[in-house]
Amino acid sequence: MPDTPVPALPALPAALLDALHALLGPRGVVTDQADLVPHLSDWRGLYRGASPALLRPSSTEELAGAMRLLHEAGVPVVPQGGNTSMVGGAMPDESGRQVILSLSRLNRIRDIDPVDMTMVAEAGVILKAAQDAAAGAGCLFPLSLGAEGTATIGGVLATNAGGNTTVRYGNARDLMLGLEFVLPDGSVVNGLRRLRKDNTGYALRHLMVGAEGTLGIVTAAVLRLFPRPRAEAIALCALESEEAALSLFRRFRDRDESAVRAFEYMGGNGMDLVLRHIEGATLPIAERADHYVLVDLASSRPDADLRGLMEAVLEEALEAGEVTDAALAESEAQRQAIWRLREEHPEAQKREGASVKSDVSVPVSKVPELIRRCGEALQALIPGSRPVPFGHMGDGNIHMNLEQPEGMDPAAFLARSHDIMDCVNAVVRDLEGSFSAEHGVGRLKPHMLADWRGGAELEAMRRIKAALDPKGLLNPGKVLPT
Amino acid sequence: MPDTPVPALPALPAALLDALHALLGPRGVVTDQADLVPHLSDWRGLYRGASPALLRPSSTEELAGAMRLLHEAGVPVVPQGGNTSMVGGAMPDESGRQVILSLSRLNRIRDIDPVDMTMVAEAGVILKAAQDAAAGAGCLFPLSLGAEGTATIGGVLATNAGGNTTVRYGNARDLMLGLEFVLPDGSVVNGLRRLRKDNTGYALRHLMVGAEGTLGIVTAAVLRLFPRPRAEAIALCALESEEAALSLFRRFRDRDESAVRAFEYMGGNGMDLVLRHIEGATLPIAERADHYVLVDLASSRPDADLRGLMEAVLEEALEAGEVTDAALAESEAQRQAIWRLREEHPEAQKREGASVKSDVSVPVSKVPELIRRCGEALQALIPGSRPVPFGHMGDGNIHMNLEQPEGMDPAAFLARSHDIMDCVNAVVRDLEGSFSAEHGVGRLKPHMLADWRGGAELEAMRRIKAALDPKGLLNPGKVLPT
Repeated sequence: MPDTPVPALPALPAALLDALHALLGPRGVVTDQADLVPHLSDWRGLYRGASPALLRPSSTEELAGAMRLLHEAGVPVVPQGGNTSMVGGAMPDESGRQVILSLSRLNRIRDIDPVDMTMVAEAGVILKAAQDAAAGAGCLFPLSLGAEGTATIGGVLATNAGGNTTVRYGNARDLMLGLEFVLPDGSVVNGLRRLRKDNTGYALRHLMVGAEGTLGIVTAAVLRLFPRPRAEAIALCALESEEAALSLFRRFRDRDESAVRAFEYMGGNGMDLVLRHIEGATLPIAERADHYVLVDLASSRPDADLRGLMEAVLEEALEAGEVTDAALAESEAQRQAIWRLREEHPEAQKREGASVKSDVSVPVSKVPELIRRCGEALQALIPGSRPVPFGHMGDGNIHMNLEQPEGMDPAAFLARSHDIMDCVNAVVRDLEGSFSAEHGVGRLKPHMLADWRGGAELEAMRRIKAALDPKGLLNPGKVLPT
Repeated sequence: MPDTPVPALPALPAALLDALHALLGPRGVVTDQADLVPHLSDWRGLYRGASPALLRPSSTEELAGAMRLLHEAGVPVVPQGGNTSMVGGAMPDESGRQVILSLSRLNRIRDIDPVDMTMVAEAGVILKAAQDAAAGAGCLFPLSLGAEGTATIGGVLATNAGGNTTVRYGNARDLMLGLEFVLPDGSVVNGLRRLRKDNTGYALRHLMVGAEGTLGIVTAAVLRLFPRPRAEAIALCALESEEAALSLFRRFRDRDESAVRAFEYMGGNGMDLVLRHIEGATLPIAERADHYVLVDLASSRPDADLRGLMEAVLEEALEAGEVTDAALAESEAQRQAIWRLREEHPEAQKREGASVKSDVSVPVSKVPELIRRCGEALQALIPGSRPVPFGHMGDGNIHMNLEQPEGMDPAAFLARSHDIMDCVNAVVRDLEGSFSAEHGVGRLKPHMLADWRGGAELEAMRRIKAALDPKGLLNPGKVLPT
């Protein structure tokens, strides 16, 4: 049961509801508001929406049929995958007019081909299930991110998700060969081609990826698979400075860029919080540092000698005074323990108190300047606050988070959220970066899109939106500023 | 001087010409028909067009200004880079109304950054010049194709060019991080962002790549660079069958997919022609075979031991009876000699007589079936004709060319061109492939686009074209069927 009274909603026309019931069956149309509750708020707690109905088609044909009915009736639609958006991208607004379209029953893996190295997965397949299915066929689907147990293939493609392995395998976009999607009027584009080269007209699939469900609904995709890694080496390093972290990345990249599976930076503040709040977390090196990186090397070649590569590069960096200490994982348990220090950053921040997140990127060369300047600016903005920068150094994508000062009222701190984001963004903009590296725009950042990508770029986006969704029914209020 | 009489052309309005002269200066506007001749036919000799003027802006601002003037006057524009299109993509039509927009003076490399591993290159930079500039900075720009001495960065991006190293580094699309382009009305989208992650709105740059200049004019790009290879190993192998070639590819890919820089198939007919017609070409193995592959391994890791990898995999394949003989290059000269056997295929075909080219792709698993079935169908279609399949096996992209029967009248053979293409395409379609893997659509294949990508997919493309180029002025008659 919802914990707040459900407002009276404008009901869907009875004829439309009947037609949807006839098309989707009893499991396919949910109108009981109690059942809708989990779909009406986002996990970050940023938004709370309202909706007259949740639709759960079980096939592309059913979904297309439902879209046709909604299109004719002029009813707006909000697609929802795992509902793990960081920017409210899957939330209906408060009007109660927007129907939620769940992809959860389109959850079949239609095909895995270890010769073509492809998987055809429907939009509702959970990312973790796709990873597991690939592993079951002796292959790797490399996309990996915190929400992988809940996020769906449709969602990660619609938002062009990134994650930890982007430095080696690219974003979700780069892992897609073909796409099936449904346009707002219910017409189906079947682009499930398993081709590595196909220059036949406009790259509609690339337009859909990252459009966050505002141009079409992704229903299935051909995903790229890779040979599974057969050699690995992982280390946690303590470093002298932000610049030393970049220098270490360059050393590994220059030596063998194809071996660098992840290269994650963590500032001293964040590591302190993890060690304080996360049970069992311990630092595998002797002393606390102000800067750490997790280096994760992998290769499909069994005799790649990644341990030798790791030791050789770390030795150079130790001699150069960049790395002050390092620990190599000697077992799977140690490997997991090192990764846990990185993965528990969000949880540790939460337990310490209020924090404000960011998801920015800059050219890789400017990551040290980003971390340093943002840290200084944020501490000047809110004295006593603790910058917690961490993330994907190899991609230039640092989560430039800020933890509240000890003892400050969390609400008072969160009231400064916009100031904090503006403070980070000012530095990012000066460094020619992006206000959204991997989380997208959603409901949270359309005003930033207008500000940063205005003029001809935004005008072209608006024209494309009007061309493909002339009635403006698909995920309204997301991405483009209204 | 042109070798055929120049037809009387409808002149551009005098006021427009004056304004273009004022904007672009004397070097920027070419109206002398003798000077236009090289720009009015394509190098394959498929098309011969007419044009009242060639414009040569020297900056993005000049180009944008010229586009504004042409847009206001309603004059159609055909962008032209190196004019190396295989499908007439840079040719004006015969009306004499279409102005040619040359990118040749936008030829600066604005920036190379070996930390970010990026190069900012203008559209008119020759591909080879971009490769050389990257090498000069100690890096690699991996895009490599036959026309690299003439083709331009703008052209390879507008057509999403492929080439020999796609199996490792992807198509042109995958080598682009940011794009600057000019819309038909002269507005400039400055998307020259050097970011590895940037999820801020619709992927306009991906829409421009592969649109062949029908949606906007690419003026500059941020390109991805890679560490230069420090270890290499190259071999020519003779194989038992098409299936054995695929099996060998799988062996290398599974062992170390990041080491496979190129994997090129060549049928026996094509190799015979190269050995017959190309001076100095010799087979580095003992006996003629019906199937060959060139395996090119590379790594940035100096101690990658690719020779060991090559020998280990070839030994397995020899034992399995897939490979019947193999020669490893022992020197740079031998390396070049092996590559030359592959690169001279088009020239050898030309010297032998008339041939009909194709550029198709299928899922990698279906390459053997493609080669076998097309070969049989083509020989049934034209008895005595010689199938010359060769190309990028690792991408599923085979040039399924056909050489005329010995002694047949070349003109009579070429009169069957459409039958031959239809014959190949029927097999490709049955194997769920593409009628254009890397050459694009241009003027040659819009009817195929209508046939293969019709319905909702083509309709969405048409809507995007109408949205971004409502007057239909940009490269008319290319890509989309009229």
